[in-house]
Amino acid sequence: MEDLLDRINRLLNEKKFGEVKNIVSQENAADLAVLFEELFGENFGERADFMILYRLLPKDLAAETFAHMNTDMRRHLIGMFTDKELRDMLDELYIDDTVDLIEELPANVVSRILKNSTTGERRAINDILRYPRDSAGSIMTIEYVSLHKDMTVSEAFDKIRRVGVNKETIYTCYVTENRKLIGVVTVKDLFIADEDDSISDIMETNIISVNTHEDKELVGNMFQKYNFLALPVVDRDNRLVGIVTFDDAMDVIQEENTEDFSRMAAIAPNEETYFRTGIWKHARSRIGWLLILTISATLTQIITNKYEAAFAAVPLLVSFMPMIMDTGGNCGAQSSTLIIRGIALDEIHFADFFKVVLKEFRISIIVSSVLAVVNGIRIYLMYSQNILLALTIALSIIATVILSKMIGAMLPMLAKRARLDPALMATPLITTIVDCCSLFIYFNIATIIFANII
Amino acid sequence: MEDLLDRINRLLNEKKFGEVKNIVSQENAADLAVLFEELFGENFGERADFMILYRLLPKDLAAETFAHMNTDMRRHLIGMFTDKELRDMLDELYIDDTVDLIEELPANVVSRILKNSTTGERRAINDILRYPRDSAGSIMTIEYVSLHKDMTVSEAFDKIRRVGVNKETIYTCYVTENRKLIGVVTVKDLFIADEDDSISDIMETNIISVNTHEDKELVGNMFQKYNFLALPVVDRDNRLVGIVTFDDAMDVIQEENTEDFSRMAAIAPNEETYFRTGIWKHARSRIGWLLILTISATLTQIITNKYEAAFAAVPLLVSFMPMIMDTGGNCGAQSSTLIIRGIALDEIHFADFFKVVLKEFRISIIVSSVLAVVNGIRIYLMYSQNILLALTIALSIIATVILSKMIGAMLPMLAKRARLDPALMATPLITTIVDCCSLFIYFNIATIIFANII
Repeated sequence: MEDLLDRINRLLNEKKFGEVKNIVSQENAADLAVLFEELFGENFGERADFMILYRLLPKDLAAETFAHMNTDMRRHLIGMFTDKELRDMLDELYIDDTVDLIEELPANVVSRILKNSTTGERRAINDILRYPRDSAGSIMTIEYVSLHKDMTVSEAFDKIRRVGVNKETIYTCYVTENRKLIGVVTVKDLFIADEDDSISDIMETNIISVNTHEDKELVGNMFQKYNFLALPVVDRDNRLVGIVTFDDAMDVIQEENTEDFSRMAAIAPNEETYFRTGIWKHARSRIGWLLILTISATLTQIITNKYEAAFAAVPLLVSFMPMIMDTGGNCGAQSSTLIIRGIALDEIHFADFFKVVLKEFRISIIVSSVLAVVNGIRIYLMYSQNILLALTIALSIIATVILSKMIGAMLPMLAKRARLDPALMATPLITTIVDCCSLFIYFNIATIIFANII
Repeated sequence: MEDLLDRINRLLNEKKFGEVKNIVSQENAADLAVLFEELFGENFGERADFMILYRLLPKDLAAETFAHMNTDMRRHLIGMFTDKELRDMLDELYIDDTVDLIEELPANVVSRILKNSTTGERRAINDILRYPRDSAGSIMTIEYVSLHKDMTVSEAFDKIRRVGVNKETIYTCYVTENRKLIGVVTVKDLFIADEDDSISDIMETNIISVNTHEDKELVGNMFQKYNFLALPVVDRDNRLVGIVTFDDAMDVIQEENTEDFSRMAAIAPNEETYFRTGIWKHARSRIGWLLILTISATLTQIITNKYEAAFAAVPLLVSFMPMIMDTGGNCGAQSSTLIIRGIALDEIHFADFFKVVLKEFRISIIVSSVLAVVNGIRIYLMYSQNILLALTIALSIIATVILSKMIGAMLPMLAKRARLDPALMATPLITTIVDCCSLFIYFNIATIIFANII
């Protein structure tokens, strides 16, 4: 890549545009989008050769490259396009890419795009935009191949040949009757069948489809489960309105994962990449939860204050606070992470509530016993055989581990039940709750065991 | 699903096997695998009707359902299969599914499978098994369609018709010459071309491929980037040895995500689902890190002990320990999560080290200032206008936030550099390191500010 970059840079400077054109025409659109970023960096707006290079691309490759670029570049390009260029580009883009584009552009640019679309395109765009943000309808495309049940296989081949160029996928075709979805045929089925077979004989009628309003996370899970190339999207009356293709499903899977990673680390999710997000936006997305968590720490302050007598009498107790709290936090995080992941992958449901809680309870017995024994012995040996101290820590570990695993298992499932994102119930929130509980337990156990002293 | 379940149960009890056969033949393999689990639960081994139901499935559907089942069921089925049944099933399975199967079975069963494969299959299986565990070679299949560059389009169609049935994908075909990969043609390209065009005229020669030994995580990222249906896998001499299909790439993406979620929560990764993992295995996968982390807490104990004089003089200091430590832990987790995710998605590289550290530094200035001001004022008002206490907390927050964001950003990148999984450097480990640092900072600031008292 480095070589290519230098070469294009040199050729652009030498104004050898013909050569540049030959080179870039051979490249893949995804790679070209990266090349544009590497060539022009963040100053692309001020570089005249940015538009020159873009205009050297063949029309279809230009549109595809456009679809892979970041928002800023796309916005800039649209501002520079003539109306003809804009129309040409929209011709080449698939409807779902156009919709993605429209969703992230300012209103005046959107109206310019809509003005330059055909009536049919405009209707399709508006239809998709009308679906809720995270729904199957919002990620579907309307460019699929539909067949008629009375067609023969060779007629179907002819139709695919005729309309296929503009369809996002031709490999799965949909059989409709009065707009209702009645069958699915893959190109592989067509290849295997005889030329004279009728579509109704070879089509699969046990169709797996998704409703327009279904959550897109479910769509991702269905692709995972069934290994489809495309999934039909139907309305309430089983009328086919579009399809979701596997590449969009893959994007959904990664987006949902990134969102969960963010939420679980107390960060407000953000669709841009790390580098493309400014420091103020980074700060804003992190500060919310941190503020809530520091202020809710008032609770641990109150609890700790209440037991001042205990650690005034046995100052050593203070030095074990971090370990008790962290162990609780880590145990809670382990359970909540597994449960949140299980819910996201559709493996754990609210109906499993008691099964999960019981399982976590049994696991926590094993885990806490091992931790209590090892640390009890360690402390007994390290602190001049102070058996009371060792006992206090060991018992506190057992109680903290069990409690935090219970909380870590229950909160995500209750969140799911309350239609909240389970990932919100992750590490930081659980840490705060567990902190309060574990300190309370710890100081109470200490007060009882050291009753003579405190 | 519920209705279907009851119906099949009833029909099985009534021994109406013909009817059962008609019903299950209509179902999708992925759904059937779930149906088997729901019908027989964990006692499938003792239920005679388990084998009866399985044997009612048409041969191809049985093999596909088998591929979707969990390890225990597959192991049981193989034990029950006659040699003929085993051979039939292997006939229907794609080689990469056979390899998945072999990887998780005990040796005696493996040798039975290999004995029942054809020589060609056996060679292919051994070839794939020989690749390192997480390599592209280990997830590829050898069942692709290869074409010759001098074929015409209609000859290519004929070949696809002839060999396509047994190929995992027919939609992307590979053009080879002396086993070297020289071009790629999609079925869509074939449809658009004229019947007499030669393959060498329409094939894409700028091929994106992956080496057999490349990490499968990279394969997942490439699918994400290029939206391929299949990716060719080549050896060091650019000879085509197999392809990875999008469905396997999707599995890789989810597996890698699950692995990262686990590692980041201090859990040893495990390929089985939550419910299919026994409590002892769950306990084992969680206890390792917890033990390490409790024992490393010795450090926080030593630090806290050292400052006994400080909190003996100002007991209130103890009650802010949890807040300071948690804020540090949360800030470190935010940074490390974003960086780990960025590395996994190939957006952040080690070359960006200083860029990332600088960015995190600037973000931490903003975040820490807001937290310090809000909490400083809160503490000033709550604790009878104790300005020294408010100042101690505010300064400690600033120092802790900056430091923990630096550590959270640097450790994952250093881990990547050292060829460790960056996800290992996540929340729990960073929490422990940050705990030590933040307590050290906190008590030092307190000692300076309360110098008159302590």
